[in-house]
Amino acid sequence: MFPAFDKLHSTLKQLPGLGSRSAERICIHLLAERPEKLDQLVLALQEAAQHVGRCPVCGNLCQGETCSICEDPTRDDSRLCIVESVNDLLAIEKSGAWKGRYHVIHGRISPLKSIGPESLNLESLKSRLQNGAIHEVLLALANDIESEATCHYIQEVVLADTSITISRIGFGLPSGGDITYADSLTLRNALESRKSFA
Amino acid sequence: MFPAFDKLHSTLKQLPGLGSRSAERICIHLLAERPEKLDQLVLALQEAAQHVGRCPVCGNLCQGETCSICEDPTRDDSRLCIVESVNDLLAIEKSGAWKGRYHVIHGRISPLKSIGPESLNLESLKSRLQNGAIHEVLLALANDIESEATCHYIQEVVLADTSITISRIGFGLPSGGDITYADSLTLRNALESRKSFA
Repeated sequence: MFPAFDKLHSTLKQLPGLGSRSAERICIHLLAERPEKLDQLVLALQEAAQHVGRCPVCGNLCQGETCSICEDPTRDDSRLCIVESVNDLLAIEKSGAWKGRYHVIHGRISPLKSIGPESLNLESLKSRLQNGAIHEVLLALANDIESEATCHYIQEVVLADTSITISRIGFGLPSGGDITYADSLTLRNALESRKSFA
Repeated sequence: MFPAFDKLHSTLKQLPGLGSRSAERICIHLLAERPEKLDQLVLALQEAAQHVGRCPVCGNLCQGETCSICEDPTRDDSRLCIVESVNDLLAIEKSGAWKGRYHVIHGRISPLKSIGPESLNLESLKSRLQNGAIHEVLLALANDIESEATCHYIQEVVLADTSITISRIGFGLPSGGDITYADSLTLRNALESRKSFA
């Protein structure tokens, strides 16, 4: 429409989950319909930028020195779950199936996007592993080639020369999943990861 | 999660089209993954707030004194299309079916939401109508009870004692619409607004 509008529109469009049309709706809402909300949003963004950061221990989001999971004394210090993003951490937390600690590596190795291991949050992982408290590492990375490569890198470089037990989350038919509608790769994963039925 | 995060989350959640989960994704994206985008967003919002406003003539968004549609000399000054929002104006513009001017009233009368005619952009509409250049008004408001009430108000109060031709956009089967799947009200509208087929 005009420069300041287009700039806001293109900035919003880059956010995850927002397409061109939804970004346009938000622009119009903030500029034409509810201008007072724009100031609230600027304030909330500035406050969050000032107070929220990455936890220096695990890479999760935190307000304060370390995050609530790192500070929780009831967590099992000997088990560490490695995840790609804070979103993945929250999803696993919601499942309630993990009581150990986390480490967020913020991405996956992707030669096509020029993301090498040096861009990931792996240095702090190495220093965490050095104190010897961790006996088990669970790689909760996605089921694709880039995540597979990242798992291999962590196993062969970061965890090399340690006696830590390494596992990767299971792949197979999702909960409620139907065999008829599952894709071939999922079925292959599911058949390969079969367990004895007792 | 923690105060500054929750505040940003709840502010984002109020924007149109953003639910709790998508607002959370944007928070995490801006705070954990791409903090430089947060500053860009704050800047774009502040610039837009400073430079973009409502056109004093028609209520459309503009950067500068009046909007691009009001400034366009090729538009038909004698026809005025009244819309509820800038979104509706853009949708009609995209159709290419209207070459007159617009007037955005920014809402519809809704007693349940305590929105009376005084909250709408009707004063500037009255003064636009006074100079006598407008001969036709098209009410391009939605097909529901609140918009119907708004149409009646405009017809009976704003346009009272004028000789302006008033019309309302047609209602019926949408383009590509199937009679089998159309709801009863749409079919009723479609039957009522039947035209001679020549």
